[in-house]
Amino acid sequence: MEKELTDDVTFQKVYIEGKIHPSIRVPMKKVQLHEKLPDGSFASLHLYDTSGPYTDPDANLDVKKGIPRIREEWILGRADTEERNTTQYIKMMAKAGTMPFDTHKPRRAKEGKNVSQMHYARRGIITPEMEYIAIRENQERALLRETRELTQVEKERAERLKGNSFGAAMPENITAEFVRDEVARGRAIIPANINHPELEPMIIGRNFLVKVNANIGNSAISSTIEEEVEKLVWSARWGADTVMDLSTGKNIHATREWILRNSPVPIGTVPLYQAFEKVNGRIEDFTWEIYRDTLIEQAEQGVDYFTIHAGVLKDYVALTKDRVTGIVSRGGSIMAQWCRYHKQENFLYTRFNEICEIMKAYDITFSLGDGLRPGSIADANDAAQFAELKTLGELTLIAWEHDVQVMIEGPGHVPMHMIQENMTKQLKECHEAPFYTLGPLTTDFAPGYDHITSAIGAAMIGWFGTAMLCYVTPKEHLGLPNRDDVKQGMIAYKIAAHAADLAKGHPAARLRDDALSRARFSFRWEDQFNLALDPDTARKYHDETLPKDRHKSAHYCSMCGPSFCSMRISQGLAKEEEAVL
Amino acid sequence: MEKELTDDVTFQKVYIEGKIHPSIRVPMKKVQLHEKLPDGSFASLHLYDTSGPYTDPDANLDVKKGIPRIREEWILGRADTEERNTTQYIKMMAKAGTMPFDTHKPRRAKEGKNVSQMHYARRGIITPEMEYIAIRENQERALLRETRELTQVEKERAERLKGNSFGAAMPENITAEFVRDEVARGRAIIPANINHPELEPMIIGRNFLVKVNANIGNSAISSTIEEEVEKLVWSARWGADTVMDLSTGKNIHATREWILRNSPVPIGTVPLYQAFEKVNGRIEDFTWEIYRDTLIEQAEQGVDYFTIHAGVLKDYVALTKDRVTGIVSRGGSIMAQWCRYHKQENFLYTRFNEICEIMKAYDITFSLGDGLRPGSIADANDAAQFAELKTLGELTLIAWEHDVQVMIEGPGHVPMHMIQENMTKQLKECHEAPFYTLGPLTTDFAPGYDHITSAIGAAMIGWFGTAMLCYVTPKEHLGLPNRDDVKQGMIAYKIAAHAADLAKGHPAARLRDDALSRARFSFRWEDQFNLALDPDTARKYHDETLPKDRHKSAHYCSMCGPSFCSMRISQGLAKEEEAVL
Repeated sequence: MEKELTDDVTFQKVYIEGKIHPSIRVPMKKVQLHEKLPDGSFASLHLYDTSGPYTDPDANLDVKKGIPRIREEWILGRADTEERNTTQYIKMMAKAGTMPFDTHKPRRAKEGKNVSQMHYARRGIITPEMEYIAIRENQERALLRETRELTQVEKERAERLKGNSFGAAMPENITAEFVRDEVARGRAIIPANINHPELEPMIIGRNFLVKVNANIGNSAISSTIEEEVEKLVWSARWGADTVMDLSTGKNIHATREWILRNSPVPIGTVPLYQAFEKVNGRIEDFTWEIYRDTLIEQAEQGVDYFTIHAGVLKDYVALTKDRVTGIVSRGGSIMAQWCRYHKQENFLYTRFNEICEIMKAYDITFSLGDGLRPGSIADANDAAQFAELKTLGELTLIAWEHDVQVMIEGPGHVPMHMIQENMTKQLKECHEAPFYTLGPLTTDFAPGYDHITSAIGAAMIGWFGTAMLCYVTPKEHLGLPNRDDVKQGMIAYKIAAHAADLAKGHPAARLRDDALSRARFSFRWEDQFNLALDPDTARKYHDETLPKDRHKSAHYCSMCGPSFCSMRISQGLAKEEEAVL
Repeated sequence: MEKELTDDVTFQKVYIEGKIHPSIRVPMKKVQLHEKLPDGSFASLHLYDTSGPYTDPDANLDVKKGIPRIREEWILGRADTEERNTTQYIKMMAKAGTMPFDTHKPRRAKEGKNVSQMHYARRGIITPEMEYIAIRENQERALLRETRELTQVEKERAERLKGNSFGAAMPENITAEFVRDEVARGRAIIPANINHPELEPMIIGRNFLVKVNANIGNSAISSTIEEEVEKLVWSARWGADTVMDLSTGKNIHATREWILRNSPVPIGTVPLYQAFEKVNGRIEDFTWEIYRDTLIEQAEQGVDYFTIHAGVLKDYVALTKDRVTGIVSRGGSIMAQWCRYHKQENFLYTRFNEICEIMKAYDITFSLGDGLRPGSIADANDAAQFAELKTLGELTLIAWEHDVQVMIEGPGHVPMHMIQENMTKQLKECHEAPFYTLGPLTTDFAPGYDHITSAIGAAMIGWFGTAMLCYVTPKEHLGLPNRDDVKQGMIAYKIAAHAADLAKGHPAARLRDDALSRARFSFRWEDQFNLALDPDTARKYHDETLPKDRHKSAHYCSMCGPSFCSMRISQGLAKEEEAVL
């Protein structure tokens, strides 16, 4: 497993403890800098850390046992759940030959109980999950505020750079109470199935850091279970805040079990994929009952959020007939086909209340799927897309009646000038439930580089208010991503999310940019590398042309060479300037 | 040299002839599709082609002789220039040992003549360069209009997708007269030194396609002349509209000569680099006379545009003292140092009229340098940057009095929410002279991926009205780009430029996206690859997981496998839909 993070003394995995709930230990990545502070000590920066125990040198890891169940005590402490020997569980055990794990019996809400974080929030309860998130989102802002006052120059700079948040309201200090309030209002979600106690709580909402989801999962054509678990760890290593397991091939149940037991981040799925496989892809045999049983099966395993295409209504299918690329959502196309074949309304819509009952018994969050999202620039923002969005807004209100958490999936393929309309409409139609978009891709002409075509759109829509960005890898439209594709997709999207945080004016976002810029101007090469999103690559690129160690302290690089280094000249000027004043 | 473009029958290099000037042959890349048209023939698409003779199988190429001098006849035909045996030329010949080329004596305007395209334009003359550009920018729109009327569905789609151009006025049909008018107004430029007759004319202005510049050039530390020429051809192969030779090392004159004689695209330089090397980087020895002689030397070689940091005024240097990253422009820092050392105003500013006299004698375009651009997010849009911009606007008016063409360089490092202000201010302060920006980078935290951090900003500022985007490679801030870095930078920026064209509503931009999207929905894999920005990579990625030839016609790919392909299902639905209607 990954250890490189801690091989170097410049990185340290640290944990910050809770105050309301002392059992909380929030992980952060501490970067030690060589920048001297006025008091003679050296600066450091705490970074948000999604990598889980895999980067903790003290962690005792065994992929066959799973990672520590840090939330188990909190869940048991609430005394509103019980172990269940369900039919699903018994079936699962019967197949135990393929299951490498110590078994954990599934838990479920006790009769009449609702175990969703929204339900607790609405009753005024600050759960350990909420306090954990408050500490995590604050990063070290609290520390910084305690250290010193801003100088006049810093205050002016902050004023000049203050963001435009398009109505998002990000407080300077994120308290556990603020987290609770946002969850209670439905403006933020904490995906955290009671059967996934391994996860490190995180929040998705536009008043918090913009998050990134990575899709992994095998298809019938390629990839193995081990590869998928490795991709999970790898995604989290590069900053994935949640991971969707989109497997459609064989061993779908076992793959998911491996992933969940080893995942420090929330896991989402599209239950339709597995349900549809159970009928061998025969639309005529596909029923609500098969789908419902699949929901329960996955709920018991611990899936944290479900993509459910409940907005693909029968009558909307006709709206797609003049499209250039029809229906490009797998789930959307299957449900459209189902409606057409059975001449009935989409059962995900008609059975929505029944689905809510399942969701609240495990605290699973809805990710209301955009089955009619555009699959090309030509189809952006059309009648089909917006008809579905309106329906998703109606379903949001129903879910909220059940105290079930909701986010809304969004496009897709949208040219830059049509992106903002998506956000504005989503906020209005869906009552500020968090938006979760795939890109959007801003052009269709660059297959092989859709991580870039879509990072442009993702950065913009993140700025406008999207709470989580679903990454796109370079293989999009062409094939299944491998390990390096996953990394490239993650990097592009961490850039998009961070650029969005800066533009929104997130209070913590600029700390890292400024630290890196100061390191750059002072020729502290090691600090630059260590603060970089991808320290390995930054170091490697630098060393390609200036490999000798002494160049790490050189006051130039190979871009300009020693005589033409503007930063070197400019430093000299600054010194003269000070001498003059 | 590159030949792969024409190895396949699906690509063809075609030439479109002029009407006003029949000697004009505008190259285009014709992509043959397998899409059947109503009349039974197969569709094709003409793409803008910057690759020059290197992709023409009939071209007779010899890097030591240079490419054909296609504009020579036009220049001679104007009868306003003459050959000159200047001191510079004689000096150059004395060093002929390092010069591998057949010599061409430099030309210069006859006494009292002005040979700039702006000068001709203002006298109502439509030069061959202008007609060439009109044909080039139209691509095949004229052809399409002649072929058929749009259907009702297509008209509605066009209305839904119509761009937001922020005041740019792009006509449906670009005429030579429109080109002339835009050049006369200073809103567009045609960089085309009379001593660079090899170039294929192109235009930079916000009412035309957004352009991309690639920087190449050796530094004292690494890279050779041959590598630089190879990078030039390679950049043009991937769509560079202009190339800046930023060499600072040895053999600077010979490198430039090789590049110019082999370049089908305009070449820009920062003459300051060479001039400063002539005094071995000693600020105390640096004079206007040395700089002026360098301008003439490069003018005679055929450099098409000069970056000149004439806006770095003495008093502005103090405005940078509280910056996080000081002055990050090499030229800017040198001139600031010069002002400080000599206690005089920047000679590029005080001698600006003299510089204009040189520019108009060769038709060299000003690229007024932003020596005080921000070098970090923290320094974006500050007083120093905007003070310089205002001065650049004043200098623009002076250049225009001389009928000398001008573009304005822009930042740099700017968070998303502060990008638009740059464009708005530039249009106002600089009287709509074309804007030419480096990125901007939207965050500082990802060295190694600044082609992506900046493609986001570049796409946005291109949409807002920037006429040309200067690419950034993955090596930015770390080292000198190699061949693959140049390609990665170009790809990211062609994406940004095209996304901007789509968002502006450029009449031709959507043709390629739609053709590719239709190919995707019809599983015409070969058409998808051939229409892609990088066909090689798209094909390679597809073949990694589905290598067999039969999969090229398969109605699925490895992302979802055969049972879960939404497009396959959606096609079936569309057929049923038609049956119902």
